[in-house]
Order: sequence, then structure tokens, then C-alpha cells
Amino acid sequence: MTGELREAILKGSRRAAARLMRLIDDDAPQARATLTALMPYAGDAYILGVTGNPGSGKSTLVSRLIARFRERGDTVGCIAIDPTSPFSGGAILGDRVRMQEHAEDDGVFIRSVATRGSLGGLSRSTPAMVQVLDAMGFDTVIVETVGVGQDEVEIIRLADTSLVTLVPGLGDDIQADKAGLMEIADVFVLNKSDLPGSQHLKRRIQTMLSLHQNTDAARSAAPAIVATSATSGDGIDELFAEVEIHRRSVEEDQSRQTRLQKRHTHLIRAIARSELEARFDEHVRSDRFSQLVDDLAAGQIDPYKAASQLLSWLAE
Amino acid sequence: MTGELREAILKGSRRAAARLMRLIDDDAPQARATLTALMPYAGDAYILGVTGNPGSGKSTLVSRLIARFRERGDTVGCIAIDPTSPFSGGAILGDRVRMQEHAEDDGVFIRSVATRGSLGGLSRSTPAMVQVLDAMGFDTVIVETVGVGQDEVEIIRLADTSLVTLVPGLGDDIQADKAGLMEIADVFVLNKSDLPGSQHLKRRIQTMLSLHQNTDAARSAAPAIVATSATSGDGIDELFAEVEIHRRSVEEDQSRQTRLQKRHTHLIRAIARSELEARFDEHVRSDRFSQLVDDLAAGQIDPYKAASQLLSWLAE
Repeated sequence: MTGELREAILKGSRRAAARLMRLIDDDAPQARATLTALMPYAGDAYILGVTGNPGSGKSTLVSRLIARFRERGDTVGCIAIDPTSPFSGGAILGDRVRMQEHAEDDGVFIRSVATRGSLGGLSRSTPAMVQVLDAMGFDTVIVETVGVGQDEVEIIRLADTSLVTLVPGLGDDIQADKAGLMEIADVFVLNKSDLPGSQHLKRRIQTMLSLHQNTDAARSAAPAIVATSATSGDGIDELFAEVEIHRRSVEEDQSRQTRLQKRHTHLIRAIARSELEARFDEHVRSDRFSQLVDDLAAGQIDPYKAASQLLSWLAE
Repeated sequence: MTGELREAILKGSRRAAARLMRLIDDDAPQARATLTALMPYAGDAYILGVTGNPGSGKSTLVSRLIARFRERGDTVGCIAIDPTSPFSGGAILGDRVRMQEHAEDDGVFIRSVATRGSLGGLSRSTPAMVQVLDAMGFDTVIVETVGVGQDEVEIIRLADTSLVTLVPGLGDDIQADKAGLMEIADVFVLNKSDLPGSQHLKRRIQTMLSLHQNTDAARSAAPAIVATSATSGDGIDELFAEVEIHRRSVEEDQSRQTRLQKRHTHLIRAIARSELEARFDEHVRSDRFSQLVDDLAAGQIDPYKAASQLLSWLAE
């Protein structure tokens, strides 16, 4: 059964891939076995992360980029992480709605991932899904994430190249918010650049980057800033060129092993984190945890000691 | 030293409170002792959580609500969680910029929290900071958070009342994104309701809530939906009235002990999670973890077994 699923996936069956992704999401035993069997086949895909707030036009941008990758002959797998409605049990913006222009293209596979459990957060199973698309043989895997947050940053770290999408004119708030991504973005995309404030936003980013440069030895090159209008297509050529430049620099600078280690580290960590949260939930409902909370309220125990206690239970 | 700091905070010294918050952020030993000593004094504050995307006008809304609480005679402590610039080491939108109208008011204390470490995420120390403001004797503590994500949801759970701020006309994307908050919002605020699309947004939320109602036995009452314009002040009366209604229902339905347990659970969990992430970082750099990653790449170990292995090291 596991062998059949693996074979179907290695032959490129989308149905099989979709099925495995559901199994991964459900944390089914079969998923574990199949994912393990697929591991040696993964590692050749180029991973592109695209992040940005809702309303930044990411999906249209991703659709444009998919078209460019296809023109060059790359097959593209895409994981779009959508907020989930807690009652629908699935992504509100489904695969059907999103990026319809690629629906008829056999070289493109798009999967929307629901963010179950952690409301508004990112599915913990994303690194595993990237592995599946990689093992299937997609040349490029795009991971599109909504907004920012701890989970999102993890995904960005998984990518070979990270695009951060910003939109002018939404006030300083949004720009400041995005500043948290300054140190991990490889390319900034100023989308909807026909809106007022685009130049101001660009200067802001440049200033922040120049301040940052002195303290960030880890980054090999200053991130590019590209103004686009995903709707009209303006700037997409330049953006794709910058993505290609970064891709080549990664391929030159990092060995296959280094890139694999990065991905596998995130895979293991994502699974471990998810398991830990489940254990937390379990212990938090226990009688001894209630006692701990009572002791804390009474000032009889340090909250840090209480946390250590909780951690020691996790190891039991 | 610890005793002095505690006494100063219990007397309401803002300088002492700001100092303790910095110590908490730095995870200094003195912070631990002082926080422990303050625990028995906390628990009487009403906690209001306000969440929403950047650009939703949250800060203006919070400023308006602070004014209402003050009119009623409540003192208000506010924690505004800001994205951090990685190079400034602090919040970009500082306390000075935000909510200046309350700057001269002794009954209001506003503290911006940087989200260090977890880029774009929420400071892990927020539950501890809420405890400090509570122990200082503030009647109401407002926690304002940007965007959504796992960390944000944790904070919302800490609150007695949770406001979710939505803005019309930013496209389906943003509304879908917010849907993840449907099950935990006590009051929906449709801010900037003078923009087109406000009625559409309201109907959407109502539809989602009616679908949800059948499956959500835990919620005592359907969440209110209030249209506001924080800038002009329209709808703020109604919003404050709804907040008061929910506050009273919480005070009637939940004992002080129940509310304290909720807060302390989050405090312990936040500290434990932060500690775990630090341990993760440590183990991920170890030689045996590298070996694990190599085994995984070779298909010699299940990624789930690898994750279990990592977890077992955490307990050492």
C-alpha cells in the first residue's frame, strides 16, 4: 500500500500526491512510511518562498512567476498556505479559484494548505509537503505564505530564495511590520507600484537595508528591490531576472548537501514542534498542572520553575 | 534589590515597571525573582485583546477605547506589540508616536513590545508583562497585537474579551485570512466602515458565524459586530457598550480562579515554549543532529522518528 503510493507519486500522479498530503495533514501512519520512502528522491528542487500580507497581490504575482518558470521549461509545484475557516475544514480560497490560468497545464501542480489547529498560523506539515513535491520531480517548488509570524519565518528559512512582497500606501504600519523580514528577504517586491507612495516605500527599504548592512555579515549580497504591478505584468521580467540571479548564486555558493541539511532540519523541527504542542495540550489538562498553576498564583513557585517542571513532564 | 523593584512597582512606579519589563525581555535572573514576588498581587485586571492586520486602524481604536475606560474612571495599562526592526533593537513605532493623546495622563501606561528573536512574531514575554501591569493595579490591561499567527492566538486566549478588527474593501483575501479568528473573537470591529464594502463584509461575517454556531457549543453568546470609524469616532460608543456587555458576562460566568488559571497557564506555557525553542536551536547545531539529518537524507530514518529523537534530547 505504502509502496503503491510511493510508486504513483514517483511517477508523478497528482492524485497520489494529493492523497499523501491529506494523509500527512492527518498525521496518518501511512504518511510517515511513504514520506520516509520518498526522502532519497527529494533534494533537487529549487524552493522559492513568497511572503506578504493579505491584499499584497501575492497570488497574482506567483501566477506570473509560474508562467515564467514554465516558459523556461521548468515544472512547478506550488503550496499556497491559506487561512482556514474553522467550520469549512478547508481553505476558503481553494485551488480552483487561485491561479486558474495554470489549471490546464500538466507541468504545474498547485495545492492549497489549510492552517488547521493553529488558527491563522501556518500548517506544520508544509515542510513535509515540500518534500513530496520535490520527490515528484518538480524543478521549482513555490511556497506562498500569508502574512508574517513565527511559522512563516520558518518557511522562509526553508526556501532557497525568499521574496517579500510589500504594497505602498497602506501606511507606515504595514511597512514597519514588514521590517521584521529585512534580514531574511533575498528580493523585495514592491507590488502595486502604480499606487502612490511606491518611491517612498522603496527609499524606506533602502535606508533600512543600508543601516542593516554593517551588522549582517551572513548575507552575501544586498537584496534586490523590484517594483512590479502583478496585474498589468509590469516589472515581472525584472523580478524573474533577479530571482534567477539569486538562484544561481545559491547554486554556486551552497552545495546540494548544505541545502538538503537546511530542509531536513526544518522538516524534523516542524514535526517535533507539532508533537510538542500536542504534548503541551495534554499536560496542561492534567491535575498536576492545575496544582502548578495554583502554586504559581500563591507565589509559592517561580513561573520559570513552573515552566521547567512542565518541560520535564514532556520528557516522560 | 528585587524587593526594592517589587515595592516600586506595587507603588505604581512606571520607571520601575519599564525596568522590570526590560529585564523580563532579557530573561534576567532578577526578573524571575521579581515576577514571582508580584504574582500574588496580580489577577484583578480586566484584559482586553485587540487584534487586526496592520493598516486596520487598531492603534487609533485602542486610543479611543482608552479614553472611554478613563472616562469611567478605570486606569489603563496597554501593551502594544510591534514588529521590530532587527537593527534598531526596538519597536519602530515607539510609545511616543502611538497614542500621544494619553501621554499626559497618569492613569494610562503604554508600553511597546519589540518582537525580538522570532521575526514578525509576538514577544514571548507578553504574558509576563501583562502580569506586571496587573500587579501594578491597572483596572484594565489592553494588549494590542498586529496581524495573526500562532503567537497572536495565544495572546487572544489570554484576554477576557477579544476584539478582532477588520477593514472592508481590502479584497476577499484579507477577510478570508481573518476567518481563522472566527471562533475566538468576542466582538468584531468593522473599522473604517465609511469605506465601500462595509455592508458586504458584515454579511460575510454573519454568514460565517451562523454556519459556525451549530458546531461551537463553547461560546456562550454570538459575538457582536460593530461598525466603527476610529478616526471620526463613529461607532465607538456602541463598541464600548459591547465590550462592557462582554466584560460583565465574563465576570458573571467565570470565577476569579478560572480567569487566573487561564492567565497562569499561558504564562507558564509561553515561558516553556521560549525555553524549548532555545534548546532546539542548541541541539540543531550539534554533531548528533547532523548525523540524524544525514540518516534522514539517506532514507535510513523516518522523519517522525528523527523528530522523536530530537525531543528526547530536549529532556536530557
